[in-house]
Amino acid sequence: MENFERQSILKTAGRFCRNPHQINAVYEADAEIVRLPGKRASYLVVKTDGIHEEIKEKLYVDPYLIGWMAVTAPVSDIAAVTATPTGILFSIIQPAQTDDAWMQAFSEGVNDACARYGIAVLGGDTSYDNFFSVSATVVTAVMRRQPLMRTGIRPGDHLYATAKLGLGNAFAYARFFDTNLKVPFQPEARLRESSLIAPYATACMDTSDGLFPALSVLSEINSLGFRLESPMDEFLTDEAAAIAAGATLPDWFFLAGPHGEYELLFIVPEHRNQAFIRHCTTKHFQPIHLGRSIPEQQLEFRSGLMDVTCPPALIPNLYYEADGNVGRYFEALMKQHRLWQQPT
Amino acid sequence: MENFERQSILKTAGRFCRNPHQINAVYEADAEIVRLPGKRASYLVVKTDGIHEEIKEKLYVDPYLIGWMAVTAPVSDIAAVTATPTGILFSIIQPAQTDDAWMQAFSEGVNDACARYGIAVLGGDTSYDNFFSVSATVVTAVMRRQPLMRTGIRPGDHLYATAKLGLGNAFAYARFFDTNLKVPFQPEARLRESSLIAPYATACMDTSDGLFPALSVLSEINSLGFRLESPMDEFLTDEAAAIAAGATLPDWFFLAGPHGEYELLFIVPEHRNQAFIRHCTTKHFQPIHLGRSIPEQQLEFRSGLMDVTCPPALIPNLYYEADGNVGRYFEALMKQHRLWQQPT
Repeated sequence: MENFERQSILKTAGRFCRNPHQINAVYEADAEIVRLPGKRASYLVVKTDGIHEEIKEKLYVDPYLIGWMAVTAPVSDIAAVTATPTGILFSIIQPAQTDDAWMQAFSEGVNDACARYGIAVLGGDTSYDNFFSVSATVVTAVMRRQPLMRTGIRPGDHLYATAKLGLGNAFAYARFFDTNLKVPFQPEARLRESSLIAPYATACMDTSDGLFPALSVLSEINSLGFRLESPMDEFLTDEAAAIAAGATLPDWFFLAGPHGEYELLFIVPEHRNQAFIRHCTTKHFQPIHLGRSIPEQQLEFRSGLMDVTCPPALIPNLYYEADGNVGRYFEALMKQHRLWQQPT
Repeated sequence: MENFERQSILKTAGRFCRNPHQINAVYEADAEIVRLPGKRASYLVVKTDGIHEEIKEKLYVDPYLIGWMAVTAPVSDIAAVTATPTGILFSIIQPAQTDDAWMQAFSEGVNDACARYGIAVLGGDTSYDNFFSVSATVVTAVMRRQPLMRTGIRPGDHLYATAKLGLGNAFAYARFFDTNLKVPFQPEARLRESSLIAPYATACMDTSDGLFPALSVLSEINSLGFRLESPMDEFLTDEAAAIAAGATLPDWFFLAGPHGEYELLFIVPEHRNQAFIRHCTTKHFQPIHLGRSIPEQQLEFRSGLMDVTCPPALIPNLYYEADGNVGRYFEALMKQHRLWQQPT
């Protein structure tokens, strides 16, 4: 089973001419990596990411959060390739008469995020229409060592996350299904952690779309699968766990995507794992060990008392098939859960 | 009189934190220029430019032209700072069910333009809605010499354009006011000319918004004005001249903007002018000498038998005041022309 979204993007991207000096093929890295001419290896790293559906579907309403996320989303991708961002450019579409206080809050979100990541706004372009949409491009100064990609994973490698997961979907659940719930959401791009893992990791990808979609992409690109070795509740954030318990929902729903928490998923091979663990202890960094890669192209996990083995693309494809409609997607998840619960 | 659009953009841009290593302040260059750390001077040059209103207002309808312009618009800005583009990233919003032939034509426009400029598509992001919009960011490899900006002009400098002007507005006039007219429009970013002028020019800006808006910006930034020394019809493209004659319109209408022809306007100081002219002859390059900069912050030109002296921002502000409505703008131009024709 192929990941439908990836196939769709491969089709779109396949129409365009590519740069022979670009290191990553489509989908092979969180950001675009271009080898620059010259004897010494150096790379230009760039990433464009837009926030459109999140605003349109009212997942993001607070202008401060929109500004924060417009910066955080592409910077998180730069962190995933272990590069250091230099600056950001915006492409904004906004109503001609945008409320001044709204724009002020948006720019505060942008500025606070830029200050946090040590970057600045280099420029941008504004168009006018009757809605607000923002897309940003982050550029980096040239880096000397090759950035990390999504490729290069081998069976038996260790799979880690920079922190517990599920906050992105918990936030989305609260927005769409139970507005009485308040889930604070202001994720931080993991630049510091990125520099800690850079010497040990062989692959990295952020969870901007959630855990399952990320694992599906990594599985497909590397022709393998993943076994999550701990029960899901052990790496679920408190907020997601509380909602799951309160609404009697399966914990895995909060890892299914499509709205992620912008942690980094990364791969450490067995022979570097002990050194990595020692390094983490020294640096007071406590990544979450999720499991291991396996030769079979499948996803194995335990949710409650239920052991699941499924194609990695199964869950992400449910969202794609629901055309992005969250109500229909939620029903599809429920149906899938009942299927898994049936005795075989 | 201040240029209203510039003031509006300064206000927007003023909300955001800037990079202390960025060479250009807002509006001071066609692209963003960042000095990179290191002993040897080197610069990262980037530019984001969106095509939204042009599609929404149906100025651009042909998907091939939309693709071509999505690349050409930001590359033209890179040419204006005399840098060499490396690659491009897109941010696209499109209907989920975009017609395949339409997307194919769009990507052909993109690919043809990329091939012409020697760049490739590095990546991008796609969102879905019920309209099409595209924004692109062009990045350059690092350059060793400082890029050209819009600043540094002194009274008495020579003002040139890479070719005759007015095609952009002639195309827009045909689209909006007389669809029987066919005006071929597929401008080429002036990368070759850019490298020819780089050793001689002290400032440069493209005419993506037309001649008058560009001169207004250059006047304001440099606190001076311009005298166009030849009658306007001498530097009007044949297409614009034919439309002006056929519809009995003043020739200056086609230089008023807001839709330009993506030529480069550039400044050569007196002491380099003879060498520049010799260089042009050698390279078979025939730029158009438009006139000179003058100490007074005003625009002087001759249209037909009429000599005009006006604030540089007068004409661009008419478009701004018409809220981008082309019909109202056209009426405002007619009214202004009648005012100028009245004996004082």
